[in-house]
Amino acid sequence: MHILCPQKSLSHSISIVQKSVSLKTTLPILKGIYLEAQDQSLKLIGTDLEIGIENLIEADIIQEGAVVVDARLFSEIIRKLPDEQIELKLQDNQQLLIKCTNTEFNILCYSAADFPDLPVIEEDEVHHLSQELFRDMIRQTVFATSQEDSRPILTGVLMEIDEDSLTMVALDGYRVALRKGKIDATGHHKVVVPAKTLNEVSRIMNADEETPISITLRDNHGLFTLGNTRLISRLLEGEFINYHQILPKEYKSKVKVKTRGLLNSIERASLLAKEGKYNLVKFSITDEKLVITSNSELGKVYEELAIQLEGADLEIAFNSKYLIDVLKVVDEDEVYLEFTSAISPGIIKPVNHDNHVYLVLPVRLPNS
Amino acid sequence: MHILCPQKSLSHSISIVQKSVSLKTTLPILKGIYLEAQDQSLKLIGTDLEIGIENLIEADIIQEGAVVVDARLFSEIIRKLPDEQIELKLQDNQQLLIKCTNTEFNILCYSAADFPDLPVIEEDEVHHLSQELFRDMIRQTVFATSQEDSRPILTGVLMEIDEDSLTMVALDGYRVALRKGKIDATGHHKVVVPAKTLNEVSRIMNADEETPISITLRDNHGLFTLGNTRLISRLLEGEFINYHQILPKEYKSKVKVKTRGLLNSIERASLLAKEGKYNLVKFSITDEKLVITSNSELGKVYEELAIQLEGADLEIAFNSKYLIDVLKVVDEDEVYLEFTSAISPGIIKPVNHDNHVYLVLPVRLPNS
Repeated sequence: MHILCPQKSLSHSISIVQKSVSLKTTLPILKGIYLEAQDQSLKLIGTDLEIGIENLIEADIIQEGAVVVDARLFSEIIRKLPDEQIELKLQDNQQLLIKCTNTEFNILCYSAADFPDLPVIEEDEVHHLSQELFRDMIRQTVFATSQEDSRPILTGVLMEIDEDSLTMVALDGYRVALRKGKIDATGHHKVVVPAKTLNEVSRIMNADEETPISITLRDNHGLFTLGNTRLISRLLEGEFINYHQILPKEYKSKVKVKTRGLLNSIERASLLAKEGKYNLVKFSITDEKLVITSNSELGKVYEELAIQLEGADLEIAFNSKYLIDVLKVVDEDEVYLEFTSAISPGIIKPVNHDNHVYLVLPVRLPNS
Repeated sequence: MHILCPQKSLSHSISIVQKSVSLKTTLPILKGIYLEAQDQSLKLIGTDLEIGIENLIEADIIQEGAVVVDARLFSEIIRKLPDEQIELKLQDNQQLLIKCTNTEFNILCYSAADFPDLPVIEEDEVHHLSQELFRDMIRQTVFATSQEDSRPILTGVLMEIDEDSLTMVALDGYRVALRKGKIDATGHHKVVVPAKTLNEVSRIMNADEETPISITLRDNHGLFTLGNTRLISRLLEGEFINYHQILPKEYKSKVKVKTRGLLNSIERASLLAKEGKYNLVKFSITDEKLVITSNSELGKVYEELAIQLEGADLEIAFNSKYLIDVLKVVDEDEVYLEFTSAISPGIIKPVNHDNHVYLVLPVRLPNS
């Protein structure tokens, strides 16, 4: 392998694939980035066997070939080089020469033949989605995935494609996040994508890009393509929980309240929680007024918010973390809170959109 | 105590004094901020018994008094309140009421009587210095203080005032940093200020401020005053090392080189060091050329820099960290490197200023 390419594009390409490189692994080659020079371009691949990211940049290929280099060292070297042409050349002694202006590195590398192949995904059915929408949908659901491995399926987000609609759902036993969006698709697909994968996809999306993201979903793997970058991930196996029957269809109290004001009040009320513990916040809902109280050995807090109430007065308590998580991802100015009783789930949804629904289980108080 | 004051100024004041509050202490009251309402102003104090910071803000005093509140909790509450008037009122039950628009907190507090007094410093001899200069002088010396407690005096920076000149010196047995500056002072003072104190002083200085910083040095304490903020610190006891006899007066090789280019080359060369180990970099100095090489089990690197050499060719090796530390704080475009032999200290100084001098011990190579 012998190539020339600009420092800037190589450094950018490394930053894209590096996130999927294993940091801790018993297989040393997985700490590496695979470089392949072919057809006037350089392909970079990183993988931890769960997620693989591939990025292609233009390069001047003097001799085709492939090699694997330690990701940490290679990225630090390239990042510290000046913004000039870089020469990469595989030497006979299995060292890679990295040359740029007056700097010459020779670093040890691995044989390309030992690097695992990424799964081949047949792109016969590709769905397209705007980056902005997909990033929002990820942000507005992924936080509600389970952090525990006891039920692996809940560490992922359900992606359900039905005709031109994509529904994403995450739940962890205490809350549900549901977000719908329009997609350029046909047919029906139902897969569960690991939260980590969606976070990575979100990271490689670029806010300025007009290009839609392309999604291909197979039984065991998902492929997300954006420009010169391809992210291939394993999908989670198993049946997702039937979320339709969890979401209540009716309510007895419906509160309209300013999103930001509610978030600020709950955040302040949760300050009295001791570190590491999430605080209980109590809602006391009466006509035109929501009072939030909380107390601990450190003191007590009382917050009052103006609301519009439709239906019955109510007292209900929540783990503040679950409410904060939801209110942080809602972009709309106002939300509806819907309640049935102090021991039934609460629903949060934006006032002007019916494409988000959040459910949060209350905390049962001794007297309720 | 009962006062009114704006959220913004209270929040800012807390951020100033909070840094001196003890995080880990067996004396719980030291985790607190002392608040004192008197004469139309609110005084905040934080201390860890080594450093005390006092800040004064304007407030509307309804009733004078003092109290101590948990620093972490109080700062988080005030920071999360809206930018409105805040009411603080000590209740009969030794709880502090914090009220702002529709929010009311009641938090437990400590008795003001239990808070330690800051030392009283007589301000009969005050020196003045521009903030910009003092911040530069701190930055350009404090990095060379010792991190080890085996010789406590070396964990501080010598501040020597002689007529209108301030000399600051730090050394740790491997390197020396010396920086001189003009000061509005008279007489002679020689004290050693803990590195931590100078870092705190640097932090409270505000780049936009025109006000000079006032310094009062007593035998055991130093007082640094800036606007409404006073920082009082213990000084280190003992005799500082006589740095005059360490700095060589002559040299056999004098190199003129671009600061940034040299820094970049050494930083790249040090990338081959394994984590946690500082890399050895070898200098090979010949007419008009400085070659820097380094190698480890990961590979090797060769860097070439254009220089102007006056005197003899030389081969010499250094711990790259010590060179990087110096080159990062030198603001001038070019530096002189002065050497006598491969086993004598190297000197680094900016080309156009004789008010900085840095000394770095070389690493003796097997063949030197």
